[in-house]
Amino acid sequence: MSVLFGIDIGGTSVKTAFVSSEGEILHRAEMPTRPETGLDDFFARLRALFQQEARSAGIRIQDVTGVGVGVPGFLDDACAVVVEAVNLAWRDVPLRDRLEACLELPAAIENDANLAALGESWVGGGKGRQHLLCVTVGTGIGAGLVLNGIIYRGMNGMAGEIGHLVVQRQGGIRCNCGQTGCLETVASATAIIRQAKERMPERAANIVGASDVFSLAEQGSAEAQAVVAEAADWLGYGLALTATALNPDCIVVGGGVSKARELFLQPVRQAFIRYSLERIHEAPLVPAELGNDAGVVGAARLAQQRLNRG
Amino acid sequence: MSVLFGIDIGGTSVKTAFVSSEGEILHRAEMPTRPETGLDDFFARLRALFQQEARSAGIRIQDVTGVGVGVPGFLDDACAVVVEAVNLAWRDVPLRDRLEACLELPAAIENDANLAALGESWVGGGKGRQHLLCVTVGTGIGAGLVLNGIIYRGMNGMAGEIGHLVVQRQGGIRCNCGQTGCLETVASATAIIRQAKERMPERAANIVGASDVFSLAEQGSAEAQAVVAEAADWLGYGLALTATALNPDCIVVGGGVSKARELFLQPVRQAFIRYSLERIHEAPLVPAELGNDAGVVGAARLAQQRLNRG
Repeated sequence: MSVLFGIDIGGTSVKTAFVSSEGEILHRAEMPTRPETGLDDFFARLRALFQQEARSAGIRIQDVTGVGVGVPGFLDDACAVVVEAVNLAWRDVPLRDRLEACLELPAAIENDANLAALGESWVGGGKGRQHLLCVTVGTGIGAGLVLNGIIYRGMNGMAGEIGHLVVQRQGGIRCNCGQTGCLETVASATAIIRQAKERMPERAANIVGASDVFSLAEQGSAEAQAVVAEAADWLGYGLALTATALNPDCIVVGGGVSKARELFLQPVRQAFIRYSLERIHEAPLVPAELGNDAGVVGAARLAQQRLNRG
Repeated sequence: MSVLFGIDIGGTSVKTAFVSSEGEILHRAEMPTRPETGLDDFFARLRALFQQEARSAGIRIQDVTGVGVGVPGFLDDACAVVVEAVNLAWRDVPLRDRLEACLELPAAIENDANLAALGESWVGGGKGRQHLLCVTVGTGIGAGLVLNGIIYRGMNGMAGEIGHLVVQRQGGIRCNCGQTGCLETVASATAIIRQAKERMPERAANIVGASDVFSLAEQGSAEAQAVVAEAADWLGYGLALTATALNPDCIVVGGGVSKARELFLQPVRQAFIRYSLERIHEAPLVPAELGNDAGVVGAARLAQQRLNRG
């Protein structure tokens, strides 16, 4: 029996799971991140959690063959060091080596968005696919690429940063990145909320999240429907551009906005088809399936792939 | 000593070369394609050429370890059969098996644009790079992708078909593919010629190729300069979109239009920088170096890669 340990480090909590070699979650556990207490404390707590949770789940430590970890930040080219993770206040942390010492296991680390994509390609919405584009639409828009079954990072880890496709060549709103007309400024949850407040100033106080806009659209508000339709068209357009370059065999859409499911995904799909060739939009556009588990499952898969490569 | 035999099949002529394991062309030879004489004649002539040219170049047949072939058409997923090559009037030709029988060598076949990219990544403009976007700008616009050092085909061989990026979401000219607003309609040689004729109707009779427009621009024609600037801006924009998705570590530009070199590449580079993030446009944008040899050199490299994979 071989068990993988997957870890998904977030700004407030660390999600972990023991995962079978077929991608099934055997046991979940969580701990607070507490970046302010420092790295030594972090690794001591992680080691304690690992040993204690293995015991309570009835998993023998010697059956755990590897650990994978997702981090919200930039890694070095060798995927050994966390160059910067703003939400953790980490800079130049040799995470891979420290983990191997801490858990006495072979470790592999990756950016968390890439691991979510890998998880979805293993046992989620993109199961069985070879070339996956996995998009997360929330406050911003990001994507992970899994090509030929493995994470594709590009030159410096920026592959799949499609939130910053300049879809409006002229005009457009300024993005946090400094460019104008980025996909993120017209198709993210943030964009949906902003547009809805502009079009329905009388309801602005009640519009907190994109889900409020989806609710209004479902209740028949023509303004809300127009906002949703416009954002969906932009997202489908951005996906069409990306897929024309990449020719993925599946596009998975996750994140807060995708919770609206078909109300949002259906017009996204229509736009994806409208702006791409037939042989490109043969690729299905499907919702993400793993939700909050995508990170730990992807982390376990990464550990498994590294072990198989020896 | 190990020698590879590279073949680049075009509509009118078949280019071949014996290539060293370091990518150096040892000997070139050409024969007419003559698709109308049928496949048996084609392979008989190819076999004769192979044996005769090896002899005249002083290369021992037993030193030739593999053959690679580029075809202008669609291949099946296993890269064994030419599903369709319009210019050769080929349909469902089991090219790989026929070549192995014809030359008594392990054979590998690929789309010709992909092989040009592989050639440039081996010993051309993208030498030493891992993730190459290799664009050809001529009558149309196409690209080959070499990711992690090997050709990336995508779901169905459409990866890199960036001539059909819909860069004009609304309006735009109808493309041969049926879409409107494709990159090809605003940034190809065809687009440059069309725009120049529209802007300079009095010179239309003298504008035959894109090179005529570049000449006029160099001679100081403000209209020609504007046409070149606009096409270059669109191309740089299309490359920025592609690179934002893919994060290549080098972009190689070849084809007829690139012969204008810096007159064209310089404004393309400026637009590429304008429409992409800094970490994306760290990738250099350079001219192709292999010219007409890219296909045979890439074919030789493909043969070598297949042999190494066993």
